[in-house]
Amino acid sequence: MPTLVIGNKCYSSWSLRPWLLLRQLGKDFDEVIIPLDTPQTRAEMLKYSETARVPVLKDGDITVWDSIAIMEYAADAWQLPVWPAKQASRAMARAVSAEMHSGFTGLRSACPMNLGKRYARKDRGAAVAADVARIESIFRTARQAHQAEGPFLFGQFSAADAMFAPVVTRLDTYNIPVSDDTRQYMDTILSLPAFKEWLAAGLKETWIVPSDEVDEEPTEILRKL
Amino acid sequence: MPTLVIGNKCYSSWSLRPWLLLRQLGKDFDEVIIPLDTPQTRAEMLKYSETARVPVLKDGDITVWDSIAIMEYAADAWQLPVWPAKQASRAMARAVSAEMHSGFTGLRSACPMNLGKRYARKDRGAAVAADVARIESIFRTARQAHQAEGPFLFGQFSAADAMFAPVVTRLDTYNIPVSDDTRQYMDTILSLPAFKEWLAAGLKETWIVPSDEVDEEPTEILRKL
Repeated sequence: MPTLVIGNKCYSSWSLRPWLLLRQLGKDFDEVIIPLDTPQTRAEMLKYSETARVPVLKDGDITVWDSIAIMEYAADAWQLPVWPAKQASRAMARAVSAEMHSGFTGLRSACPMNLGKRYARKDRGAAVAADVARIESIFRTARQAHQAEGPFLFGQFSAADAMFAPVVTRLDTYNIPVSDDTRQYMDTILSLPAFKEWLAAGLKETWIVPSDEVDEEPTEILRKL
Repeated sequence: MPTLVIGNKCYSSWSLRPWLLLRQLGKDFDEVIIPLDTPQTRAEMLKYSETARVPVLKDGDITVWDSIAIMEYAADAWQLPVWPAKQASRAMARAVSAEMHSGFTGLRSACPMNLGKRYARKDRGAAVAADVARIESIFRTARQAHQAEGPFLFGQFSAADAMFAPVVTRLDTYNIPVSDDTRQYMDTILSLPAFKEWLAAGLKETWIVPSDEVDEEPTEILRKL
């Protein structure tokens, strides 16, 4: 059975992406969790990948690091329905996933993924607002073109949904104003059984990653330490 | 025929990647050049993609933005030999390409791609040194495993070579110390007919992008303005 090496479920947004994809597509795998930002983190991660980063997939002799390469591997080696069935939809799903992979640094740095708390709505600056506007545009364009086929970005669940799942949690955690359509899509992701399984495990974790805790009073504490 | 929308050939590292791949694999395409960092750049780019970035591929009704999504599209829609033939090699090629796609920001910010000049060797800091060490490790590991099949990272030319081609030019432009093996690989890329075609066109361009010009006296000026 393949092994997926991940970080803490409460904080590791890059780990959530391939984990959610594989779980949602029904692929069995073992998991290894390496807590982020501890004195042992780097040495532990180096046992699996020279990059000293997670996620990493081990499948027999093959090691695949980086979330997007793991997703392509699942499509290629296991022939899972990782991407939409139609050529044009597949092309757009890969484009928005690649855009997510290297972008949205405004939102990612100001609003770290943190499943254990919720914060009050407030102005989080122009970079966050620009990222959110682009994200909502992606959601709207993709969903309008595929609404007859299902509630996900490209109708059926695909890697694009997995790539944007941590963004969905950030919009929720930081109470960022969004359209009704975006809120509906967020609820679709947040109510997935696979996401709920990840969340429940994350809320049982006791590790704290100070660099992912913003300096604000939370409005709600979901993870009781 | 598809159209590839790109930035200036002298400076646009992200444009070089898919352009080199398609040219090297013999795929015909039209090209549109939008000079970077002019008052018209954003408006021109918005005509092709809501991201206002290059590269963008237009193929009939389909628009694909982002270098890595364009490469996967070339493999998927046109069945070009974008990735290595062997499963394990393909997995690693995608992993190093994804690592390039979101990483190596130390080297990328300190040493912008600039095909028009060469600079003296000097200490460029710890972040650059760490990135170069990782890049040389990727080159060594991939090439040692595939040396019987050809001189490229995975034997035959693949998208992984295209993804790292701008890095090869940076190692050359900034005279960064590398191993003999790395230098040999660099010469393989820099002597590709497709790369030489790109370079010759870049050296004829007259646009200057100040943010990609480092504040150092060049040792050689290849582009005569």
